[in-house]
Amino acid sequence: MSDYRAPTKDISFVINELADLNAISQLPGFEEATTDLAEAILDECARFAGEVIAPLNRVGDTEGCKLGPDGVVTATGWTAAYKAFCEAGWNGMTFPADFGGQALPNVLGTAVKEMMASANLSFSLCSMLTGGAIEALRTCASEELKATYLEKMVTGEWTGTMNLTEPQAGSDLALIRSRAEPQPDGSYRIFGQKIFITYGDHDMTDNIVHLVLARLPDAPPGVKGISLFLVPKFLVNADGSLGERNDAHCVSIEHKLGIHASPTCVLAFGDNGGAVGYLLGEENHGLRYMFVMMNEARLGVGLQGLALGERSYQQALAFARERKQGRDAVTGEALVTIDRHPDIRRMLMTMKSRVEAGRAVAYITSALLDRAHASADAAEKERNLFLAEFLIPIVKGGSTEMSIDVTSLGVQIHGGMGFIEETGAAQHWRDSRITTIYEGTTGIQANDLIFRKLMRDQGATARLFFDEIAGTVRQLKGANRAELQAIGRRLESALQAWVEATEWVIANTRTGVSGVLAGAVAYLDLAVAVCGGWQMGRAALIAAGHLDKQEGDQVFYRGKIATAFFYADQLLPLAAAHAETVKAGDAALATMPDEAF
Amino acid sequence: MSDYRAPTKDISFVINELADLNAISQLPGFEEATTDLAEAILDECARFAGEVIAPLNRVGDTEGCKLGPDGVVTATGWTAAYKAFCEAGWNGMTFPADFGGQALPNVLGTAVKEMMASANLSFSLCSMLTGGAIEALRTCASEELKATYLEKMVTGEWTGTMNLTEPQAGSDLALIRSRAEPQPDGSYRIFGQKIFITYGDHDMTDNIVHLVLARLPDAPPGVKGISLFLVPKFLVNADGSLGERNDAHCVSIEHKLGIHASPTCVLAFGDNGGAVGYLLGEENHGLRYMFVMMNEARLGVGLQGLALGERSYQQALAFARERKQGRDAVTGEALVTIDRHPDIRRMLMTMKSRVEAGRAVAYITSALLDRAHASADAAEKERNLFLAEFLIPIVKGGSTEMSIDVTSLGVQIHGGMGFIEETGAAQHWRDSRITTIYEGTTGIQANDLIFRKLMRDQGATARLFFDEIAGTVRQLKGANRAELQAIGRRLESALQAWVEATEWVIANTRTGVSGVLAGAVAYLDLAVAVCGGWQMGRAALIAAGHLDKQEGDQVFYRGKIATAFFYADQLLPLAAAHAETVKAGDAALATMPDEAF
Repeated sequence: MSDYRAPTKDISFVINELADLNAISQLPGFEEATTDLAEAILDECARFAGEVIAPLNRVGDTEGCKLGPDGVVTATGWTAAYKAFCEAGWNGMTFPADFGGQALPNVLGTAVKEMMASANLSFSLCSMLTGGAIEALRTCASEELKATYLEKMVTGEWTGTMNLTEPQAGSDLALIRSRAEPQPDGSYRIFGQKIFITYGDHDMTDNIVHLVLARLPDAPPGVKGISLFLVPKFLVNADGSLGERNDAHCVSIEHKLGIHASPTCVLAFGDNGGAVGYLLGEENHGLRYMFVMMNEARLGVGLQGLALGERSYQQALAFARERKQGRDAVTGEALVTIDRHPDIRRMLMTMKSRVEAGRAVAYITSALLDRAHASADAAEKERNLFLAEFLIPIVKGGSTEMSIDVTSLGVQIHGGMGFIEETGAAQHWRDSRITTIYEGTTGIQANDLIFRKLMRDQGATARLFFDEIAGTVRQLKGANRAELQAIGRRLESALQAWVEATEWVIANTRTGVSGVLAGAVAYLDLAVAVCGGWQMGRAALIAAGHLDKQEGDQVFYRGKIATAFFYADQLLPLAAAHAETVKAGDAALATMPDEAF
Repeated sequence: MSDYRAPTKDISFVINELADLNAISQLPGFEEATTDLAEAILDECARFAGEVIAPLNRVGDTEGCKLGPDGVVTATGWTAAYKAFCEAGWNGMTFPADFGGQALPNVLGTAVKEMMASANLSFSLCSMLTGGAIEALRTCASEELKATYLEKMVTGEWTGTMNLTEPQAGSDLALIRSRAEPQPDGSYRIFGQKIFITYGDHDMTDNIVHLVLARLPDAPPGVKGISLFLVPKFLVNADGSLGERNDAHCVSIEHKLGIHASPTCVLAFGDNGGAVGYLLGEENHGLRYMFVMMNEARLGVGLQGLALGERSYQQALAFARERKQGRDAVTGEALVTIDRHPDIRRMLMTMKSRVEAGRAVAYITSALLDRAHASADAAEKERNLFLAEFLIPIVKGGSTEMSIDVTSLGVQIHGGMGFIEETGAAQHWRDSRITTIYEGTTGIQANDLIFRKLMRDQGATARLFFDEIAGTVRQLKGANRAELQAIGRRLESALQAWVEATEWVIANTRTGVSGVLAGAVAYLDLAVAVCGGWQMGRAALIAAGHLDKQEGDQVFYRGKIATAFFYADQLLPLAAAHAETVKAGDAALATMPDEAF
């Protein structure tokens, strides 16, 4: 069993020094987001996540949730914890004050999301899904629907769900068959079955607001014929009180590998005459609205990846500091704690450095979104939005794949105990396994990175990153510390590999798309390695500055430089290998006969 | 749910063409092991594994096993399947005819082990452990003990266990506390608790033969004071019938992440006066006997890794050939099966190529052991033994780490369905997670590779491999097919990386052991990549020879070349990155303050 202590020191470093919260708080609307307020929020959230939410993580894994006659029953402690979560205001932190939110920057919301996901991924999913639904309503709901639903969702009194998947329509939403029939009163009746609906039903709130993709009778086929509807679990009367039970029911829940306490529902709409739904935005534009939210949802899942990595790291470190086995290979001292063994240290440092790199890139992305949202200058707005959107598949694909590897190391460090469920290390690994799948698989992230984010401006945004990273390389190589110079050399080679692979991809996307597709995930891996190395390099430079001035927490800054150095030595050499694989294209795949698989 | 069809075509190719069964059947004692007999065995074992054992895999995962008042109760169908397994003679295939075995070469036994582990890892463990115990008895038991126990274990009428681990003694066996008190009749009384005992109790046979590490009263401390004892569950009367119940009891079983159907027991010895035990071999030499068996046990666990990879690959392939999502990116054809998407093909080929590379290296190792055991020439014997022993940590470490990655891809290819337990893909991933831990963690394999296998002859055995691989490179580069030349170039670079890293390791083992230890797993990864590429290169050359002569299964040989080419493009570039990491040593680790973790 592990305790969770939020890594507020590193989060604070990332928010203030890498993401420059001070600059964000100069933007219109974010004036209140001072460093002091940020520290207060981090401390309070750390306490809440560690004391209230984290202890339920194992309970939830063991009990799971159950489908009873009145719907889904969550695990022991869930409803009380959810109530406390909402009352403390964590649900609405980044939403507008008009609807009961606190209008704080995303970069602070990101810290709250990370801590909640580390404490208890299953628990945190409910609020994450509600947040996505809120974004959708803000984007495309009528004023009337906003007035009826938004505030209750921002406070968390009602939760939200996203209903995309159907048995035949997973990654390919063109295949959606659920249908919506217009009614004389302007509402619709919704019919169809949706699967994999997270918190599709539960007992924590009085009402649930389902957002549902479905087709109108005259809709064109494919993705251009999908509309988005709001379907409440209970209809809402004109005075805001709850009315009739709607024809939307959970008919079963899945038995899953992980996130046992998060109910994954099959929802049946319209089995008894039709579920009442309300059109959101324009007809047949449903997918566009979904994609508006998708970027933030993907960033959220990327955060989950690093959150699980952090939790697993903390548990492995605590174990390694207590468990005694073997002699110290250098001093010969008998029976030392295993954190003294170089291979265990390597694993711990791999976990730590990958988590910190992932954290830095995720928070930077989130800060770019804040700049994009709040900046008054249109060109600045667009530039920041493009930069953020470029990084989002890197955060989502990179940190989720990382989490599988890192939580696996967490199991490994425990040895045989890691394989025993009571230890708790295995749960993080099992929970991590969904993160590379939902909100778009890693393959989909890689395609998004290349075909949307890289190619939409023929590499112009990518080149902005290359220039920034080259600047960091120059600073590192010119620094007066050997470690920084070493990091600079590794980062320079890795950047070079990324630049070359990018040129290859841009050239080949025009001529041989199948070769690019075959190497897309390798291209994503490459971008992930370099972006992580870049942020770790920046972090090392900042840490060195503080050390030179002998200010702040010296151990933390020395640790930051060592962690960046380790990342450079261990992770950055992979960049060249990934570039080789990208440039190999589908030469080998193309020679493979189908029937030889 | 997946069916398992043993890959007899590839296994047969590996046994006959890569491992040269024909040459082995020329060695004294192996005359019966002809190609024809091998084919008959492969076909029959494939049928048995697919029809009898594989269908129990999911049942076992769901039911697990239970500890009742009379001991452990295995899952439905287990006892009948075990009986059928023994009656068919699979348990004793490679053991001497004197004790009821069939005295066939290891390389054939390896095929049987692979198929059984693919079909049902939990089930196969019982026989694997019995095999280890048989080897131990053959090495160090008195003639009397051999006469009493061996034949019944070879036929499978009784099973065997290995009792090493205690709560405080995992990887570090020096910490063992179980004790043995000599009795006037020459027997011993054993006291102590052992944990993680696979099939420590079960209901499939009348008796179980526990091999137990314990200390004599006057034993020196540490690993030089450990003796090995035989402790039967039921004592055996002079006439071979079962006598009294011995004082060795299963007191609990673990709740594990995977291999649910394999009982992992806590065994209490001597809680009621002492368990009767018999000394095996000399006093205080227990660990040496264990290490004799360890090599083969580790090879066995490596096989488990590739077996799980194979099973997961088959299931993912079947799913990808049926599941329809999305358009063909090249032809634009609507709604194709997902095996047409380049990224899915990449994942399938990654699975296939890594499994086939792992298989080739494992079977080669097993054939080297056959040559070592059967060769009449002492120098030849030692040479083959050294080569095999060098490869064993590569097989164990490499194929088990591979299995975690490959079964994870198996989950990924299933998308959301992969996360649902009923699909069955997740079980392979969960089951795989123990393989990098038991019989020595990956870190321990890496240390074994460097400090025992590489350094015991200052790299002489390693250089034999380098010469062999260089020969394969020359053949590939001189071949008349572009794919073979491409494989040759990749293998040449990878070999160069291995050679350089080896030189660095040899030089630094003498001076800075902590830097070598920090990069030991990277060195192992490097060796794994190159050895896999070497065998795939050999396989491609052989396949090309058959294609040139237009003989045999043309699709299989074209597929083999494509698979080797893919491995070269995707896996071999990693060799250079691993070499960089090895040579980076502990430069970064050394700068990390303890308190900054």
